[in-house]
Amino acid sequence: MKVRVAVFGASGYAGEELLRILLRHKNAEVAAITSRKSAGEPVSTVFPRFTGAPLVFCEPDVEAIASKCDAAILALPHGLATEYAIPLLNAGIKVFDISADFRLRSPEKYKEYYKADHPAPELLRKAVYGLPERYREQLRTADLVACAGCYPTSSILPTAPLLAAGLVSPKGIVVASCSGVTGAGRKVDLPYIFPECNESLKAYGVVGHRHLPEIEQEMAVAAGVPEMAINFIPHLAPMNRGINSTIVMDAMPGTTLEKIGEVYAQAYGSEQFVRILPPGRTSDTKYVFMTNTCEIGYNLDPHTNKVIVTSCIDNLTKGAAGQAVQCMNIRFGLDEAEGLL
Amino acid sequence: MKVRVAVFGASGYAGEELLRILLRHKNAEVAAITSRKSAGEPVSTVFPRFTGAPLVFCEPDVEAIASKCDAAILALPHGLATEYAIPLLNAGIKVFDISADFRLRSPEKYKEYYKADHPAPELLRKAVYGLPERYREQLRTADLVACAGCYPTSSILPTAPLLAAGLVSPKGIVVASCSGVTGAGRKVDLPYIFPECNESLKAYGVVGHRHLPEIEQEMAVAAGVPEMAINFIPHLAPMNRGINSTIVMDAMPGTTLEKIGEVYAQAYGSEQFVRILPPGRTSDTKYVFMTNTCEIGYNLDPHTNKVIVTSCIDNLTKGAAGQAVQCMNIRFGLDEAEGLL
Amino acid sequence: MKVRVAVFGASGYAGEELLRILLRHKNAEVAAITSRKSAGEPVSTVFPRFTGAPLVFCEPDVEAIASKCDAAILALPHGLATEYAIPLLNAGIKVFDISADFRLRSPEKYKEYYKADHPAPELLRKAVYGLPERYREQLRTADLVACAGCYPTSSILPTAPLLAAGLVSPKGIVVASCSGVTGAGRKVDLPYIFPECNESLKAYGVVGHRHLPEIEQEMAVAAGVPEMAINFIPHLAPMNRGINSTIVMDAMPGTTLEKIGEVYAQAYGSEQFVRILPPGRTSDTKYVFMTNTCEIGYNLDPHTNKVIVTSCIDNLTKGAAGQAVQCMNIRFGLDEAEGLL
Amino acid sequence: MKVRVAVFGASGYAGEELLRILLRHKNAEVAAITSRKSAGEPVSTVFPRFTGAPLVFCEPDVEAIASKCDAAILALPHGLATEYAIPLLNAGIKVFDISADFRLRSPEKYKEYYKADHPAPELLRKAVYGLPERYREQLRTADLVACAGCYPTSSILPTAPLLAAGLVSPKGIVVASCSGVTGAGRKVDLPYIFPECNESLKAYGVVGHRHLPEIEQEMAVAAGVPEMAINFIPHLAPMNRGINSTIVMDAMPGTTLEKIGEVYAQAYGSEQFVRILPPGRTSDTKYVFMTNTCEIGYNLDPHTNKVIVTSCIDNLTKGAAGQAVQCMNIRFGLDEAEGLL
Repeated sequence: MKVRVAVFGASGYAGEELLRILLRHKNAEVAAITSRKSAGEPVSTVFPRFTGAPLVFCEPDVEAIASKCDAAILALPHGLATEYAIPLLNAGIKVFDISADFRLRSPEKYKEYYKADHPAPELLRKAVYGLPERYREQLRTADLVACAGCYPTSSILPTAPLLAAGLVSPKGIVVASCSGVTGAGRKVDLPYIFPECNESLKAYGVVGHRHLPEIEQEMAVAAGVPEMAINFIPHLAPMNRGINSTIVMDAMPGTTLEKIGEVYAQAYGSEQFVRILPPGRTSDTKYVFMTNTCEIGYNLDPHTNKVIVTSCIDNLTKGAAGQAVQCMNIRFGLDEAEGLL
Repeated sequence: MKVRVAVFGASGYAGEELLRILLRHKNAEVAAITSRKSAGEPVSTVFPRFTGAPLVFCEPDVEAIASKCDAAILALPHGLATEYAIPLLNAGIKVFDISADFRLRSPEKYKEYYKADHPAPELLRKAVYGLPERYREQLRTADLVACAGCYPTSSILPTAPLLAAGLVSPKGIVVASCSGVTGAGRKVDLPYIFPECNESLKAYGVVGHRHLPEIEQEMAVAAGVPEMAINFIPHLAPMNRGINSTIVMDAMPGTTLEKIGEVYAQAYGSEQFVRILPPGRTSDTKYVFMTNTCEIGYNLDPHTNKVIVTSCIDNLTKGAAGQAVQCMNIRFGLDEAEGLL
Repeated sequence: MKVRVAVFGASGYAGEELLRILLRHKNAEVAAITSRKSAGEPVSTVFPRFTGAPLVFCEPDVEAIASKCDAAILALPHGLATEYAIPLLNAGIKVFDISADFRLRSPEKYKEYYKADHPAPELLRKAVYGLPERYREQLRTADLVACAGCYPTSSILPTAPLLAAGLVSPKGIVVASCSGVTGAGRKVDLPYIFPECNESLKAYGVVGHRHLPEIEQEMAVAAGVPEMAINFIPHLAPMNRGINSTIVMDAMPGTTLEKIGEVYAQAYGSEQFVRILPPGRTSDTKYVFMTNTCEIGYNLDPHTNKVIVTSCIDNLTKGAAGQAVQCMNIRFGLDEAEGLL
Repeated sequence: MKVRVAVFGASGYAGEELLRILLRHKNAEVAAITSRKSAGEPVSTVFPRFTGAPLVFCEPDVEAIASKCDAAILALPHGLATEYAIPLLNAGIKVFDISADFRLRSPEKYKEYYKADHPAPELLRKAVYGLPERYREQLRTADLVACAGCYPTSSILPTAPLLAAGLVSPKGIVVASCSGVTGAGRKVDLPYIFPECNESLKAYGVVGHRHLPEIEQEMAVAAGVPEMAINFIPHLAPMNRGINSTIVMDAMPGTTLEKIGEVYAQAYGSEQFVRILPPGRTSDTKYVFMTNTCEIGYNLDPHTNKVIVTSCIDNLTKGAAGQAVQCMNIRFGLDEAEGLL
């Protein structure tokens, strides 16, 4: 059996990564790829690396596409995803959304950060958060999956088990992340041209970045508290792919490196896509480049009594396309790693 | 009048940057450049960009060199600097040390971080910390200048005025810094070859980095407290030059963006080499590339009541060679910016 | 059936790429990985991305390894490969050598370029040149495969059909190539550290590069002439992977873009790993990044009557590890593309 | 005396480099900087590195600007430069044009490559080609200077003396050049965003690039022949600045490395901004980074009897802004190197 997958918004970097994965996936076939700008053109026009693949971009005609697919992966800009998700869900298609449209459970938070009412608040309740290492069981039966964002994935995976185990305080957490430029999408704008990015490293969105409430929401779930307030500070770094998140947390009394290691082993010991480094080591984006792995290192600073965790993912794979396929594999009962190694 | 300057250890990146600055300096002449490995070779053998400059590397023969220079800038590895500083000082030469040998005032701290007794603890008292924006008056008469380190410069300049004014708490400060690869020196080692650094971003020295006590020492001076304990987390980023430090601090009651702006204006309003951005902006390494400027941006997060400051320098200029020349200019009564614009 | 493969010299970049390919190969299993420096260490010590793979580096003990493998891929330095190839061949193992040891058919040429007698000249006759698009039939029964080099692959594939068809002159060919830094191997040497390579582009080996006789040999075979003399000029470019070769040749009378297109279609129309671009386009290293594809573009300059061909490969994949696996797949009767998509 | 300089089109990369040079120039002052898009904004809005410089972008009002400047440097797009040059010349202002508008002496060639009649063909005769090492005397009295292009500068400087001395043939020359991305200007277009350029190296404009007739024109002048036809093949490389041109030419009978060295010594021995490497060496873009120098290396391949020359410049300095200032210094009788070291 092959899952027939439609990719909406396939001409961006997440779309390209989805095709890279799906074209070698044994139990999936690409049923449609949409792009309003490139409709009618073969995939190789936009992505020469896929020359030979018999794929042609089409208009995002939901009705026509729904009739020939089982799953839809939405790599659309924020806001647009909802427009497509609704009719696709109505047509019985399983939807895996890479945008941020369905990640927040609270319509109020959504309004606070997106300055608009959510167009379909009932779907916020329906959506399952697409982070398999945290929500695998719910994903098995989900109709709508809100795939975890790139920064959130790199922040939640290393912190959730520690918060859940009470090894760190939910208060005063600082997350400083650096992302490669594909994190901005295939965006044609002055700040993203090569000479502006090369030899440049800078923070942005220092206060109130849109990934902040998503990170806080999931950290709070893990910590078992109603609300959390953290600092999340993203940076742009001169590389194509990769996110490194360095996270500083107050150690709770009695926390030791050994206990942290045990908690991680219990949480992720059987996870294929989480790699816990030996204590004292730090993660490196190059070791997860073009993989679906999250690499985590941990330290304890006796000087300040802080737990310092570093965490790396490839923002296009585990932070977007790979995560979507991993969720899809789970939903359709396939080998969770299919296409991802 | 021209200051005759000897550069010890001139074949590394700080040495190259020193020559770039000194060769266009109107009131300085390069009296000697030493390199044990390249002694006897013209400067152009190591640095083709200086072809035509009539300079030849020589052995670091202190006696011979002392007889023909007024100032010595030491771009030597840690430990070696002391060996040369002592006889140079005895010969009446003003010494500007770029290494970390004389930056810590406490021999105990030195021993803790360098695992050895300081070879000349009396010089720790004598040395003036080479950060002109903080110690300009003392520098005018200093015999031995311990030029501020690269990470410390980018950390101390943006925090000292806020600590001194009581706008931020001295407790719980987190400094997350990213440095370009020249920060490691011209070191031939596997982690620094191009394919290992490119597409790589990682933290290192997460606990107990040697720049930590230097940062804490100067922050404590500014805050007027005997001791401070912070978290300093350096990262290596795939670029040649530049440090970005992102610093998260607890705001004290009553702190506002306006007050921060006023404090910075008072501290740095007349400084040529500090640029304070409008509130809400963030610094960018590319805007200080190959300059002696420290660019500082500031934010206040009402959500967590944190002051978030970003600060960028060029690690080889303001973080090393430029700073040394700025100190030298002050010491010899020259225009402080000579050679640096 | 699974081919049991030993990788000799597995701790370099070609070794890493081999493991990346072989670990997902359906019909191969890694029987041994050797590294004298890392013997006894798990593969993850050198390559954290392979954490979880149950592989441990071992000493290159030919006897022990020969008893448990069917094929050996040698990713060893020039010269050393022969030492291992001889006993492996004697033990009946099929050998795929990525080094340059067996690529030249003429012991005289070998001596001219390597300044030493070839240690096993009889093997030069026995070896099949490992460029499947040119020698597929011979590869099916080869015992010793001298995998084509990276620069040669990018130079021979686009020129051989044109030379064979008489569309270009074998005289006066100029090949100007640019390679990423992994082309130098995982070499720890000053010219390869990040700050020396970044913002640097330079030619090297302008006269008498060791890949020159290999390129000339295979071009001459294609052209049906006893000898050729060309100019091959390699450059180092600031990127990890990828070779672009730009090749300028005299058009023979009657040559048109259409004819070139036809010749390429005939030569490579059914090749999975050669992509011919529409006339007038140029190849781009990013479109072959981490693939086994050679992308070729062609132009005809009426102004000078030159055929200008551009050709890109990933030097570690089609230029090394991918090519070796492609040859191995052919030799063992497997799907030629297995592991390579 | 200070030359009052207006910079037209000051918001691009050449404009930024002009300001970097002019702001430290002892005998020049910036009288006006124009930018239609940024008129009314301080220079620091576009280029934070110039914060503190009392410069505000203004509309390109020729009349107003002409009344307060002695020289105008045009960093405008092709075509637009002529529009401004005419009234400026009429107002008696010396004009230094960085665009390609006045570089070709032949209106026919202009039409062939630019697909339009030249709007002011009489100015083509009046303009002096702005390459000081070739036209210094004419520049001393020029009213209109057509500054040499970046690729042409890197191609003409190393070839002209050899052609003039008859050491190489004017036939069959191949120039393969690689440029950093600032060579495309500060252009916001998909091919120039970071992820499209990084890990990418490709040829473009392989046939009929607009710099081709300029290169051929000046090579022919040097060779003393009426016309030349060469191949010029530019490439885009993943770096900010720098051009490397590798040039392959047929050696004439009797040409030796020694003779080449002598010819270069005679041509450039007293030039401050040309650096001839010892025979057998190759130039490197990093050694001219942010300098006004052209570095030239030369080789002779006995195997094919070709002279192979490599030549590097910084495209924004010697290839644009630095060259314009050098020409201006000559025209106004200043030290030719002022502002450029």
